[in-house]
Amino acid sequence: MKTDIEISQAVELKPIVQIAEKIGLAADDLELYGKYKAKVGYETIQKLNSRNDGKLILVTAINPTPAGEGKSTVTIGLADALNQLDCQTMIALREPSLGPVMGVKGGATGGGYAQVLPMEDINLHFTGDMHAITTANNALSAFIDNHIHQGNTLNIDSRRVIWKRVVDLNDRALRQVIVGLGGPVQGVPREDGFDITVASEIMAILCLATDIDNLKARLGNIVIGYTYDRKPVTVSQLGVQGAMALLLKDALKPNLVQTIEGTPAFVHGGPFANIAHGCNSVLATQSALKLADYVVTEAGFGADLGAEKFLDIKVPHLSKAPDAIVIVATIRALKMHGGLAKDALANEDTEALKRGFSNLKQHIENMQQYNIPVIVAINQFVSDTEAEFDVLTQLCQELNVTVRRANVWGEGGKGGLDLAKAVVEAIKQQPSNYQRLYQDSQSIEEKTQAIVEKIYHGKKVNFSAKAKAQLKTFEQYGWQHLPVCMAKTQYSFSDDATKLGAPKDFEVTIREFVPKLGAGFIVALTGDVMTMPGLPKTPAGLNMDVTSDGQAVGLF
Amino acid sequence: MKTDIEISQAVELKPIVQIAEKIGLAADDLELYGKYKAKVGYETIQKLNSRNDGKLILVTAINPTPAGEGKSTVTIGLADALNQLDCQTMIALREPSLGPVMGVKGGATGGGYAQVLPMEDINLHFTGDMHAITTANNALSAFIDNHIHQGNTLNIDSRRVIWKRVVDLNDRALRQVIVGLGGPVQGVPREDGFDITVASEIMAILCLATDIDNLKARLGNIVIGYTYDRKPVTVSQLGVQGAMALLLKDALKPNLVQTIEGTPAFVHGGPFANIAHGCNSVLATQSALKLADYVVTEAGFGADLGAEKFLDIKVPHLSKAPDAIVIVATIRALKMHGGLAKDALANEDTEALKRGFSNLKQHIENMQQYNIPVIVAINQFVSDTEAEFDVLTQLCQELNVTVRRANVWGEGGKGGLDLAKAVVEAIKQQPSNYQRLYQDSQSIEEKTQAIVEKIYHGKKVNFSAKAKAQLKTFEQYGWQHLPVCMAKTQYSFSDDATKLGAPKDFEVTIREFVPKLGAGFIVALTGDVMTMPGLPKTPAGLNMDVTSDGQAVGLF
Repeated sequence: MKTDIEISQAVELKPIVQIAEKIGLAADDLELYGKYKAKVGYETIQKLNSRNDGKLILVTAINPTPAGEGKSTVTIGLADALNQLDCQTMIALREPSLGPVMGVKGGATGGGYAQVLPMEDINLHFTGDMHAITTANNALSAFIDNHIHQGNTLNIDSRRVIWKRVVDLNDRALRQVIVGLGGPVQGVPREDGFDITVASEIMAILCLATDIDNLKARLGNIVIGYTYDRKPVTVSQLGVQGAMALLLKDALKPNLVQTIEGTPAFVHGGPFANIAHGCNSVLATQSALKLADYVVTEAGFGADLGAEKFLDIKVPHLSKAPDAIVIVATIRALKMHGGLAKDALANEDTEALKRGFSNLKQHIENMQQYNIPVIVAINQFVSDTEAEFDVLTQLCQELNVTVRRANVWGEGGKGGLDLAKAVVEAIKQQPSNYQRLYQDSQSIEEKTQAIVEKIYHGKKVNFSAKAKAQLKTFEQYGWQHLPVCMAKTQYSFSDDATKLGAPKDFEVTIREFVPKLGAGFIVALTGDVMTMPGLPKTPAGLNMDVTSDGQAVGLF
Repeated sequence: MKTDIEISQAVELKPIVQIAEKIGLAADDLELYGKYKAKVGYETIQKLNSRNDGKLILVTAINPTPAGEGKSTVTIGLADALNQLDCQTMIALREPSLGPVMGVKGGATGGGYAQVLPMEDINLHFTGDMHAITTANNALSAFIDNHIHQGNTLNIDSRRVIWKRVVDLNDRALRQVIVGLGGPVQGVPREDGFDITVASEIMAILCLATDIDNLKARLGNIVIGYTYDRKPVTVSQLGVQGAMALLLKDALKPNLVQTIEGTPAFVHGGPFANIAHGCNSVLATQSALKLADYVVTEAGFGADLGAEKFLDIKVPHLSKAPDAIVIVATIRALKMHGGLAKDALANEDTEALKRGFSNLKQHIENMQQYNIPVIVAINQFVSDTEAEFDVLTQLCQELNVTVRRANVWGEGGKGGLDLAKAVVEAIKQQPSNYQRLYQDSQSIEEKTQAIVEKIYHGKKVNFSAKAKAQLKTFEQYGWQHLPVCMAKTQYSFSDDATKLGAPKDFEVTIREFVPKLGAGFIVALTGDVMTMPGLPKTPAGLNMDVTSDGQAVGLF
């Protein structure tokens, strides 16, 4: 069987200028990065504003398991299928972080015959967006430490700097560090830590900013820490939002690439969904809506994290809400949610499937709360049996939800035609009537409760003493109107990663809030959510190589 | 008076495809990064191998002073002038580090009417080479710490890891850090530090590698530290040279840009000259020699550092040595070397000039030791007087060295025509007969002594107890044959930055050696050479901004 990279390297890519023509963009609208990647410039994006919007399809999933779901693969295959049906379609995906690529994933650009290309470039440095974010983030850190070192006129409490440095790598040794050691010439010692770049507030800002001025304003609003008398200190007080925006001026432009079948795809921005809002950029999604009749986009992890944040945090910055939501599941993963062990997944087990369906069911009902049509996509595996699929179909019918199998991994768009037809039909039949889960005017506490009750179905939210104290100060600062971005394990509806299926009677504890005034939300930390992954014992990087003529080896 | 960025933004750039035609490259030879930047692919570089070499002109300088010399500006202007004389010429320059750009320099792409463009891009992320190096460097650090954390089968002594992390920023707080804090799950605590990216051994490797296989072999040779029983540990033992080479596969390709006058310029690689070898990449210089009749290149800081390293470390990897060496000086800087204070430099002072000439004289004589024709270029300032220039001309004539004034900052190539004619004449008249300062077969100690005696003109080298012990172990490891890369202040021939002019009777102390087996040299540390600069009280970044339509502001 061919690997993803073998499949992708056998494809003859079309020049990106040709791909752009499919969505009405000329060569002058593009800033080329080689023959097969391009950024779309600001002038072009502005020109699009007056156009009508296409239809928006949000692809989400059940809670991920080690069995795998293939959400990006389905997103890509569904778009290819829509194009085969002569629905003019483009994709808006997140760009991968190098950390997981080097660590465990090897690549994150779909799989099989449903991939975005050139996969090597996208998985490695791509057009440099991640590096620009890393640099802007760490430049701010350098400016902060330099300010403290050079007299600290802003009276920043070095013990209360909340702005952390980042690298786009999995590097556990950087989670907690002490910087500024070595005596008075080397700066002021303080505790610090590194997050992975995709967890940086700047990544969230880049993905929510609507233009350069908005980007700069958001950067200026970032709270980097507090003074000795507990006043928040912002980037605009340091006066470096201009330099930071300058470093990000190209990263803000959406990246255009293509699928194996030549479907145009924006791959732009990539915040993690467990700690950040988990969606690709507003500029990419918004531009795609103006350029295509159908836009297929994806939100990170399960629908409890990525889709909730897409709907409650991202949609208010778009000109429209999704017209349909596709929830991706696999029979294997549902059986794991039903208690089956990983090494028994190849066995037919309709009972485990029925038990595990509880996870899918809750995601379906959650998404229906937003008044948007829901379709279930079963990403096929060879071990799936007809009996299992029949059981699943039956269970979905009881909920009045369409379910379709897709084999886009093995067949590309052709394997997604049934799904694509069902999606188009659902959009035609049932108009979306988006309703947000909470209102801006509710308190941070109420918003957190709304998410825990209506999405996670926990019975109660506990706020730690620290979280309670923070809520009071946030009220003083006037931050109450902001949405809440939950930081929670992706593996469970609850804050306990081991509780699969649809756990009941659990409580969720908010350990701490982190204000992200630039991104424009308040992060609520539950449990121990990792903002810097570590490498496994045998990292994927050990298998990577490059040939004498520059071909990548060992990206999956 | 227009600023550099104003001058550059008023220039109508030619598409890089047109610039490439001047050196016989077709569109297919280029990997475009936007319209005005491109990388030259491996296939093209290999095709060039059989061609004849052009003439190589090395531009170097006196020891830098706060008065400024303008070496890059003269390099660019000289090349533009040569093209005006119908000598087909291209440039091979280093690419700037973002740290100094954000810190004090604002930009590093020449000045006035002698600039390489697009200056904003080159000074910011350019084609991502620095970011690739940063990433490869820090990925190695993550692999090292992960190896120690996951059982440490190589028995690495965490107290003797010499591989440091890097950022491409000025950030003094990262000079000395402790990583791995937070308990057993977060890794093994150890002392570490961050250098600036241009000080990374990977930068030196990238600049000396001749192709991907050579790059990979060099990466594999890097010594990252020692075991508990004091054996060196290499990257190839960790098995990650493939992943690192993969991260660097595009960064290794030379970047093609243009000057204001349309002269093709490779801007590629940029190690600092005080701590590393200070020259642009071998691949860029070598390719330029195959593509143009004349190649003007530059080495960092004064001739005691950059030029010495160019001649003793880089030239052995090129197909030829320089045909001429241009030493850039300014009358202002020479007066500073003669003891004049910075605020008095505008006053005519031929006596200070005569005293300060000692610095230039020693550089001239040093370069003549290599048996290569030497020309002096005086980069003109409005405060220079005819009397001063007459004195300087007289002093140079006594040494039988041609001296020419250049006003390329104010006039571009036209201001460098006299200089260009003198250089062409020198090359015609006096064939270069390159002779290296030392031989591989000499000991590390003897090589160090050769540099200190023949270039710095110090009376003695002292080796610290640590350095002496290292020399013994290096002999055991078989590292004796490697060249020595001196790490010394750029401001003085001596290891004391305050000793201007041509100090005598000083001793140089080698505090420590650092083996750079990947780069293929042994660094000899004198005094306190900074491998991570700090930001000044008012960093250049505070004046930087970007307009709503994406134009850079505040790069000088």
